[in-house]
Amino acid sequence: MPSNDHISRQFDAELEAIRANVLQMGGLVESQIKSAVESLISGDVALMTRVIEDDHRVNALEVKIDEACSQVIARRQPTAGDLRLVMTVVKTITDLERIGDEAEKIARMAKLLSQKSALNLPRYHEIKHAADLALDMLRKSLDAFARLDVALAAQVVRQDDQVDEEFRAIMRYLITFMMEDPRTISTSLEILFVAKAIERIGDHAKNMAEYVVYMVKGRDVRHVTVDEIEREVQK
Amino acid sequence: MPSNDHISRQFDAELEAIRANVLQMGGLVESQIKSAVESLISGDVALMTRVIEDDHRVNALEVKIDEACSQVIARRQPTAGDLRLVMTVVKTITDLERIGDEAEKIARMAKLLSQKSALNLPRYHEIKHAADLALDMLRKSLDAFARLDVALAAQVVRQDDQVDEEFRAIMRYLITFMMEDPRTISTSLEILFVAKAIERIGDHAKNMAEYVVYMVKGRDVRHVTVDEIEREVQK
Repeated sequence: MPSNDHISRQFDAELEAIRANVLQMGGLVESQIKSAVESLISGDVALMTRVIEDDHRVNALEVKIDEACSQVIARRQPTAGDLRLVMTVVKTITDLERIGDEAEKIARMAKLLSQKSALNLPRYHEIKHAADLALDMLRKSLDAFARLDVALAAQVVRQDDQVDEEFRAIMRYLITFMMEDPRTISTSLEILFVAKAIERIGDHAKNMAEYVVYMVKGRDVRHVTVDEIEREVQK
Repeated sequence: MPSNDHISRQFDAELEAIRANVLQMGGLVESQIKSAVESLISGDVALMTRVIEDDHRVNALEVKIDEACSQVIARRQPTAGDLRLVMTVVKTITDLERIGDEAEKIARMAKLLSQKSALNLPRYHEIKHAADLALDMLRKSLDAFARLDVALAAQVVRQDDQVDEEFRAIMRYLITFMMEDPRTISTSLEILFVAKAIERIGDHAKNMAEYVVYMVKGRDVRHVTVDEIEREVQK
């Protein structure tokens, strides 16, 4: 029979493997968003197709990590901080998977847009800027998860307002664009949905950051204000 | 010391309480959507305000059920079917909470729309129809959860295509509306976001239905086709 010490080392290794898988999934999702936005701007149809086809890899990681979490719970009966880690992972990968879906949606919109005349297209400058912000939030929330950094997590929560503001600015811009030339309405709506997908990515990154605070502090901060979270972080 | 039998009865009672709480949360979310859509159509501003203010009740239930799930895992160390139930609940309440957010968004859009001249508004007939479909999906996925009914869950997954089709129809209709009178663009976009929120509700209900199949069958069906799910259900 293995010793308790041996079991405990194995348990730690299993938790470590789960954490590493989450970060791997995060990296994949990050590159999916980057490629999707890049393909939109460059009009690279092969890249759009690759993003759409690669979404199944994100999904497969979610299922794999979910199973690993259930197994660890059933076999190791984690409590306290270990259990909070597992529950955080279960929630985090749901958001990561949905960010993956948004990347796929952006790639699909990019395909539709690439078939249209470039003459009537508004520029993508603002879209790129909003996407960079959302990507920054995603990267920080993954870092906060990896390093148990609640201060960084609180920063992500605050950043979400910026992404929302970018979205509203893009919407105002597109409204003007459509009013000046109603023939661009259909195209503008596709770009609006790209912006909406980016705004959603920010929302998901914010959710992930909130789970990190819960994991570390053991307090659920999902439905409190940013100020309260920052007070919590300073404790 | 309590007997094993006593512990097992207590455990069953705890799981039952969690299930009951999920259904209570589902009922609340359902009534939030109904009220939000009703307030949009009737222009009842007091009702809009109530929906927005009541969202915190949905959030509080999510936190409460999440905690109950963590406690049951830590104290009862569930395995197999019991563990699947708990994991299903953890995922389900995340989707329910986000449906609650969509209801709140609809109420906020309704407020914006209620301040505008009714003269240039398109009719809400299609919105009502799409919302009824999404509500039907939500109700069925809660029923499927309560009765462990995988056939009903498979039906919900199939219905999601209908809600998506309704959304596209509303979008086409709004595009025509905007092209005919570009002064309606801003208002039409608000209605488009209401339609988008309804489409999202359908997506979340579909997620919940997929968790039910996992809970009952022990097989993850999140990323397979509807046909495969139906084959799985017939086994």
